[in-house]
Amino acid sequence: MWSYAPPLRDFRFVLEELLDVPREWERIPALADMNLDTALQIIEAAGRFAADTLAPINSAGDAEGCHYADGGVRTPAGFVEAYRQFCADGWPALACEGRFGGQGLPQLLNAALYEMLYAVNHAWTMYPGLAHGAYECLRSHAAPELAERYLPKIVSGEWLCTMCLTEPQAGSDVGLATTRAEPNPDGTYRITGSKIFISGGEHDLTANIVHLVLARIPGAPTGTKGLSLFLVPKFLGEDLAEANTLRCDGIERKMGIKGSATCVMRFDAARGWLIGETHRGLGAMFVMMNSARLYVGLQGLGHAEMAYQNAVRYAHERRQMRLAGNREHAEGATSAADPIIVQPAVRKLLLTLRAFVEGQRALGMWSAHLLDAAEHHPDGAVQAESNDLLSVLTPIIKSLFTEHGFTLASGALQVWGGYGYIRDFGVEQTVRDSRVALIYEGTNEIQAVDLLVRKVVGDRGRRLDVLLRLAEAEAQHCRDAAPCLAFAEVLAPLLSRWRSVTQTLIEEAPTAPALAYGVANDYLRLAGLCVLAFWWARTARIVATKLADPFYRVKFETARFYFDHLLPEAELRFALIERRHAPLPWIEPTA
Amino acid sequence: MWSYAPPLRDFRFVLEELLDVPREWERIPALADMNLDTALQIIEAAGRFAADTLAPINSAGDAEGCHYADGGVRTPAGFVEAYRQFCADGWPALACEGRFGGQGLPQLLNAALYEMLYAVNHAWTMYPGLAHGAYECLRSHAAPELAERYLPKIVSGEWLCTMCLTEPQAGSDVGLATTRAEPNPDGTYRITGSKIFISGGEHDLTANIVHLVLARIPGAPTGTKGLSLFLVPKFLGEDLAEANTLRCDGIERKMGIKGSATCVMRFDAARGWLIGETHRGLGAMFVMMNSARLYVGLQGLGHAEMAYQNAVRYAHERRQMRLAGNREHAEGATSAADPIIVQPAVRKLLLTLRAFVEGQRALGMWSAHLLDAAEHHPDGAVQAESNDLLSVLTPIIKSLFTEHGFTLASGALQVWGGYGYIRDFGVEQTVRDSRVALIYEGTNEIQAVDLLVRKVVGDRGRRLDVLLRLAEAEAQHCRDAAPCLAFAEVLAPLLSRWRSVTQTLIEEAPTAPALAYGVANDYLRLAGLCVLAFWWARTARIVATKLADPFYRVKFETARFYFDHLLPEAELRFALIERRHAPLPWIEPTA
Repeated sequence: MWSYAPPLRDFRFVLEELLDVPREWERIPALADMNLDTALQIIEAAGRFAADTLAPINSAGDAEGCHYADGGVRTPAGFVEAYRQFCADGWPALACEGRFGGQGLPQLLNAALYEMLYAVNHAWTMYPGLAHGAYECLRSHAAPELAERYLPKIVSGEWLCTMCLTEPQAGSDVGLATTRAEPNPDGTYRITGSKIFISGGEHDLTANIVHLVLARIPGAPTGTKGLSLFLVPKFLGEDLAEANTLRCDGIERKMGIKGSATCVMRFDAARGWLIGETHRGLGAMFVMMNSARLYVGLQGLGHAEMAYQNAVRYAHERRQMRLAGNREHAEGATSAADPIIVQPAVRKLLLTLRAFVEGQRALGMWSAHLLDAAEHHPDGAVQAESNDLLSVLTPIIKSLFTEHGFTLASGALQVWGGYGYIRDFGVEQTVRDSRVALIYEGTNEIQAVDLLVRKVVGDRGRRLDVLLRLAEAEAQHCRDAAPCLAFAEVLAPLLSRWRSVTQTLIEEAPTAPALAYGVANDYLRLAGLCVLAFWWARTARIVATKLADPFYRVKFETARFYFDHLLPEAELRFALIERRHAPLPWIEPTA
Repeated sequence: MWSYAPPLRDFRFVLEELLDVPREWERIPALADMNLDTALQIIEAAGRFAADTLAPINSAGDAEGCHYADGGVRTPAGFVEAYRQFCADGWPALACEGRFGGQGLPQLLNAALYEMLYAVNHAWTMYPGLAHGAYECLRSHAAPELAERYLPKIVSGEWLCTMCLTEPQAGSDVGLATTRAEPNPDGTYRITGSKIFISGGEHDLTANIVHLVLARIPGAPTGTKGLSLFLVPKFLGEDLAEANTLRCDGIERKMGIKGSATCVMRFDAARGWLIGETHRGLGAMFVMMNSARLYVGLQGLGHAEMAYQNAVRYAHERRQMRLAGNREHAEGATSAADPIIVQPAVRKLLLTLRAFVEGQRALGMWSAHLLDAAEHHPDGAVQAESNDLLSVLTPIIKSLFTEHGFTLASGALQVWGGYGYIRDFGVEQTVRDSRVALIYEGTNEIQAVDLLVRKVVGDRGRRLDVLLRLAEAEAQHCRDAAPCLAFAEVLAPLLSRWRSVTQTLIEEAPTAPALAYGVANDYLRLAGLCVLAFWWARTARIVATKLADPFYRVKFETARFYFDHLLPEAELRFALIERRHAPLPWIEPTA
């Protein structure tokens, strides 16, 4: 009853009409071989893998969880076989460089793949989901011989990777990490310390596991500027005959993603190789931050999509009560009960899901394409603009999508009533699984500070201005397209007020540095609502001439629903940001 | 690390100063023996039971869950012993009538007791939590000999009860129930059918279980008006020697409250006794609806209180990052990291919790007192006014408190970062346990329709007017108390706009019946925000002359925080209600 239909039609719309990426790819020599038909075939194949191979092992994997014994971890039934299939199909290599065995395809397709994988099985997807970030990091920073030894195995999926940052006393504040790295005479290092919350720190999917570990070389400065990054494999030697001196000491019992092993890792003078320069480890690891945070956002998008399509189906099947008033769409007078989708409360909830899901897909795929443009576009100005946009969009996507993954899945749960609370119906697992994404890869509160304090105030709005100009141009396009005038008339003043409130915050920051911190969460939410308004306006404009086709008519209706019912929250956020409140009171410890 | 400090100081403030209940009790002969000292002693003893006996078995009960085998259910370790202690202490009899062995104390004290029980162990409290409703129902509707046979055992806690309403095809729409009740020659009935989601349908806490079952007598009308209510005990006879022909066929695997057995019950010509009149079963069962829904609201309040106090403690202990800007309250310049409570995002989240928790406690205890006044007050006009207020407040409390129990617990989870997602830290269980309360006892969407369509439009605002006049009087009081003028200046126009939007909805209902359904959820949320504004304004006025005392100063600051940061959402709700949108689009089935 909990099932997945890959949103192929919507992907096609986004790629072909909304982003017009086929024409973009033509301008990028590295991607010029790609065309729409091939892209859609790849997405369709990815959807089949998600629906046919991963979805069926999701619920059982949650019930079974991972098994820890004597330093080893066994993943739930079917995880190993699914991973073998995933590698055999070549999915790990999709967006990797040809020189390491990759297929050199756009990130955009990898993002579409991962939205679907996360939708059907978040826990399983945690394992391969970390590999691409490690690939990016090694590709950019590892010495050539290290890269050549490890990257082909990572690209093929033969080995998986971890990111070992967190320690018990160093979570959001990784600069407090104390894991030590002592130099050996041969140029390697002895890594000693404990790391926690290490996803995939141990498992039975691959013969080797490549740990990327942040540690401090003796004499290094305190804080983040004294951390170096090391590659620390589980096994050493060509034939993996030598076990490194590291161990998984246990796995966490969690609220969700129970099939993903969250490990306590102990490094006991384990042999490691420096990646990049000493003391520059955090920068090396964060080379893939934009991409990593986009992918976490896609987790939320996938969860919301899954909740949406299953809730719509259930709301059509489940009959309870008769509709009062206008009985269009309701059953004949003889039926004892109507399907609950006729109830306004149910429909509003589902329309909310649809508007956020489809708006976010447009935004998410755009960002994935910006990753491609930032890397491959021949025009340096386009690369720079893409990077500017990404730096602003990344915290918005990470936080908005993950927040919605959880809150919208929880909203959808109401559609099932009591059944929603029962494990067999699937949606409660989505609520539990989705919750983690608000925390990791930088909590959503940290994303808010990243956006407002670092990115917007930090460069006096220069990068935000790149985004605002695109959105303002869209408002102008809508003004020129008769059926979209109503969108323009909301979007234009919205953007102008966003500019103005931003300007005020930038100007007040030097004299009142606490101000931006105090309103950062409201500002982040506002930014998300505004960016989605931009994409829904563009969507409306693109479909406005084709409303005879039901697909486009529904898009237009959804755009209107977004502007009528969801965008008004922006007013609340403006009000909360613009008011100058008394300082937040202090809170004494509770008894 | 997850622990509970009963909020005794706040209960005292609410009872003594905010509600001034000791003086109220003096005017009610049935409660005239009660005084503040005794009441506070009872609350303190209840808090000790919650903290010392129930809290310690909460987490283990979640991990262990209930065990089903051969029709029997074993509750988690410690549940039986805790229940024995609960009965030995006399808690089940607290607010029951003396003629059945009760102590005849105010509902208000029972409500305080249950807020604390739910806070520390929602799953366990489900078992006794249903008994009071059954007691009310039998006391009001059962024939005297039936009442005399069963009520003393229920009042003492020797037997527990269930409410058997839901069937697979009849959830929110109980009128679709098909369980049959065929008359026996001796005046009893043979009950045959299946009921699901029956909390406490089977367990090992008591020797007998008294099921209250909705069923249809042959020839009865369809729908809710053809349902009759029956008392169907698990065991028959004075010595319980005869097993009735009913059986627990299994228990559900749920997202939370895993220590509470949610049973599938099969009645196979089981012997039952009619309660009240034939075909009037729903009315008989819903005699306790106001009280039952208030208690579900208290579940949410308890969860939010638990999350609040633990999050405050953790935020003082956990050190991550250094505060930028104003370093008041932060550590000296030499510390590597400040406690995270210095971060504005954390503090705002905790202040939000505090403002909702304390405002809701005031509102919840007021409603509990209204239950007492409705039953016992010698003045019929006061009784009627209490009932009017309760009918409006009940759906607000049920939905607002349960929504906050979940969303605020989830918000608090962020304070723990990654630890919040781990089972050992407690808060993720609160998120899971609290989620059910948005569904049962009428989903929150049904509460919205109950408030706006049935209660407000239904009587053209007469009952709401009783509440509005009290709130308007408070705005006037604030206007006369100099330090509270600012509250009056927000509260008065807020109430006036609430009146106006309500009037519009009432006037438009006859010609546009779908309108109220479409905005019911926004209206419900608006009503909750307005009622809390009323209580925070009163709180501010009462403490305004005593700000030298830290307790009162914190209350005043919290009132201001509520008005500055939380009440602005009312503007959004007004905007969403007042705008006349296009009709909601239809949603086609997904593929």
